This record gives sequence, C-alpha cells and structure tokens, in this order.
Amino acid sequence: MNHYQHKVQYYETDQMGIVHHSNYVRWMEEARIEFLTRLGWEFRKMEDMGIVSPVTAIEGKYKRSAKFADVVDVAVFVTEFNGIRLKLRYEIRGSAGELLFTGSSEHCFTDSDGRIINMKKEYPAVYASIAKQAQA
Amino acid sequence: MNHYQHKVQYYETDQMGIVHHSNYVRWMEEARIEFLTRLGWEFRKMEDMGIVSPVTAIEGKYKRSAKFADVVDVAVFVTEFNGIRLKLRYEIRGSAGELLFTGSSEHCFTDSDGRIINMKKEYPAVYASIAKQAQA
Amino acid sequence: MNHYQHKVQYYETDQMGIVHHSNYVRWMEEARIEFLTRLGWEFRKMEDMGIVSPVTAIEGKYKRSAKFADVVDVAVFVTEFNGIRLKLRYEIRGSAGELLFTGSSEHCFTDSDGRIINMKKEYPAVYASIAKQAQA
Amino acid sequence: MNHYQHKVQYYETDQMGIVHHSNYVRWMEEARIEFLTRLGWEFRKMEDMGIVSPVTAIEGKYKRSAKFADVVDVAVFVTEFNGIRLKLRYEIRGSAGELLFTGSSEHCFTDSDGRIINMKKEYPAVYASIAKQAQA
Repeated sequence: MNHYQHKVQYYETDQMGIVHHSNYVRWMEEARIEFLTRLGWEFRKMEDMGIVSPVTAIEGKYKRSAKFADVVDVAVFVTEFNGIRLKLRYEIRGSAGELLFTGSSEHCFTDSDGRIINMKKEYPAVYASIAKQAQA
Repeated sequence: MNHYQHKVQYYETDQMGIVHHSNYVRWMEEARIEFLTRLGWEFRKMEDMGIVSPVTAIEGKYKRSAKFADVVDVAVFVTEFNGIRLKLRYEIRGSAGELLFTGSSEHCFTDSDGRIINMKKEYPAVYASIAKQAQA
Repeated sequence: MNHYQHKVQYYETDQMGIVHHSNYVRWMEEARIEFLTRLGWEFRKMEDMGIVSPVTAIEGKYKRSAKFADVVDVAVFVTEFNGIRLKLRYEIRGSAGELLFTGSSEHCFTDSDGRIINMKKEYPAVYASIAKQAQA
Repeated sequence: MNHYQHKVQYYETDQMGIVHHSNYVRWMEEARIEFLTRLGWEFRKMEDMGIVSPVTAIEGKYKRSAKFADVVDVAVFVTEFNGIRLKLRYEIRGSAGELLFTGSSEHCFTDSDGRIINMKKEYPAVYASIAKQAQA
C-alpha cells in the first residue's frame, strides 16, 4: 500500500556520477501522490474543486547514493494528521534493501483564495482514510 | 536586445560530465521569455487575461557541450510571425564565441478554452513589436 | 518491445496546467534507454568502458497536451543506424491512443576522449541487434 | 558577498501556479556554489583533483510562494564548519524583502574513492576562508 518504485533516469544524474539530491524531493512527491491516491484522494477532482495541498516543510538525510538505472523503493508513513496539517515520513531503499535516504514532508490544504481548509470537517471521508494510517 | 546569458548550474549536468541535453530546451525558453518581455510582451498580464502561448514544435542540433559553470549566450531571432504562428531561431555560444547549439521553436496563442487567437487582430501593438524583428 | 509507459508527475506540470514541453525530451530518453537496454545495450557496462552516446539532434511536434496523472505511451522506432549515427523516432500517445507528440533524436558514440566510435566495427553484436530494428 | 539573485523561470512553475517546491533546493545549490566560489572554492579545479562535496542533509520551510518572473534573493550563512562537516543556512526573500523560505544544508568532502577528506588539514586556505564566515 505504502510502497512505491522509481527507476532512476539518466537525466536525474549529475556530474558526480550519482543522482542529484534535488530528485529525492521529487521522489517523495511521486510516492506521496501514489499513496494518497490509493487512499481515496482524487487529486484532479480536488484541484477541480479548487483545493490544493502545498508543501510547507521538507527534510532529508542522504545516507548512500542512488545511481542511474537503480530501482529504488520509497516507503511512505503518515506521522500526523489533524485535518489541518499532514506530516509524512519517507524511507528510500536500494534494491538490496539498503537505506539511501530518510525524509519527511508537511502539507496544508487551501482553497483557491489561499484559505486554510480543515479536511476533518470538510472532507471527513478522505480525512478518515488518511488519519487511520497514522503511526508513531 | 536579443541576447541572454545563462550560467550553467551543477544540477544541469549529468553523469557524462556535461549539461544534460534537455536543458537547452529550457534555455531557449529562458531567452525567449526575456526577449519577448523586452519587446513589450507582458506574460503575467496576458496569462491573467487567459492568453497562453504553448510550444507547438522544437528542434535542436548539439555541436559542442556546455559544462558546469560555463556562461553561455543565447541569441534569439524571429524567423516568422503572421499573428497566428510564431517561429523563433536560437544560437547558443560558449564564452569564446564557439557555437554549442542551434535550435528553433514554434508557438501559437490560445485563450483559456484552447481557441486559437490571432495576435495581429487582437493585440496589434504586441504583434507589431515582434513582427518587426522578423528576419530571414 | 518498443513501448514504454510513463506516468505524468506533478512536478512535470507548469502553470499552464499541462506538462512542460521540456519533459517530452526527457520521456524520449526514458523510452530510448529502456528500448536499447532490452536490445542488449548495457549502459552502465558501456559507460564503465568509457563509451558514451551523446545526443546530437532532437526534434519534436506537440499535438495535444499531456496532463498530471496521465499515463502516456512512448513508442520508439529505429529509423537509421550505420554504426556511426543512430536515428530514432518517437510517438507519444495518451490512454485513449490519441497522438500527443511525435519526435526524433540522433546520437553518436564516443570514447572518453571524445573520439567517434564505429559501433558496427567495434561492437558488432550490439550493432546488429539495434540495426535489425531499423524501419523506414 | 553572501547574496544571490535568481529569476524565476516558467519551467520552474507547476499547475498550482507557483514555483514547484523542489526548485528551492536547487536555488540553495545555486547560491551555495556562487558563495563558495567567491570565497575561493574552485569547484572545477577541486573536481579535477577528484574532490567532491555531496549533500548529506537538507531542510526547508516554505512561508510564501515564489511566482513566475519574480526575482528572489537567496542569502547564505555558514553556521558550522569543522573541516569535516559544513552546515549552511539560507533565507530566500521576494523583491519586497518578504521571507519566502528558510532552509539549511549539510555537506561533507570526499575523494574519488568516497573517503572523507578533512578540509582543515588538507586544504587549510580554503578551510580558513569559509570557516571565518561562520556565525551563530
């Protein structure tokens, strides 16, 4: 449910011969969208309704380098969701299970005028399906 | 007027030790926006009015490789503009003037419903300022 | 064999609400690498031997826009390969089979000193497996 | 000395109509390289000697959104440098001085075999010029 695979592309490498560090931030997004979609979050439908979910914070620690043509596994965990603020944690591993990267992201929810939306009140079903994934 | 400088960033390199080829497409865009802005094209204002200008074709020939920390010069030329279709040509050179890349792009203009706009009719001042740059 | 699927990522969109045109260049690369790998081209092994394959030309025509969360299909065709120059053609289609983009790319092969390699002479098995895919 | 300007490019926006959050990580890199270069760090020369400086951690808080065509200012501060680990802090502001983003990054230094280099011992002049910028 919370695992996502990404194949490392040539254009994601840099001249150090490894994946450029900014791409891990993009892989967190790829895995997050897949995870939330599986939980019933319909991004397109919500954006059509004018609801967006900006990133308010990110964090990452780089342990080992992913390389071109590697297939990495991104695991996503909900660490907090009170309807206003969603916190997620990530572990990215190589094909032998070795830890490459740990990270986290925080998100809020706003309407098209930038007003904060309380998902718990306004979209209780979506809220519940995500909140029940939360773990310490 | 039609020259634009770009400093090559580390994240634009790939593991070949040169700039990844997709970035030249982005540099064409950087130079094009700067060029058109100088000619009176106010992108933000036009997008606020619902007018966008999608790319309909691109082309590029790679002669020599740009490298990290190089400052490249992108020259932009209008090759055709009839109000409907805009064609531009580009030359990207290194700091010694050596030719790295030649390219071209084509654009149309649409409203928010995707309808083609004739810039000559609807925005004659913007049209005229661009069209008079046209050269064979 | 020559088909590759790509799921459109959020970070590939731009403020027009569609995929930024530079990403199609990256999708051509994704599909090309997958295609050549299946034909026996071991990128890592070849780069370890000091052989790289720079892009010498690209071309693309944008017909319709891919959007966030679309799954696009990239078909790759060999149009020419004489051992020195490889030309490929691409068709990118949406999930209903509609044509979004057609493109092409050209490549040469060089050693670590930038000298052109004739793949037909030096790597006849790799050459043969690619050349037999060629079609008009 | 420690200020760097970046003009927001169209390809850096996403369909929310703002800059995609991964680009702030790239802007930290742009500003860091400019800053360290001014302090005497010759990236190319060091990479030619086989010394690279991977990112080991990043962090960012997003306060307000940068938009297309904005010119943002990135200020870089050295928060710690013991020769082994370099920590930097960043503030990104809009043209009215409003705070958009605060972030940090951590780096180590390795040779081509991945061995940690102590810059204080091996490159004392470069070390000293950076260390004296350190502030609480």
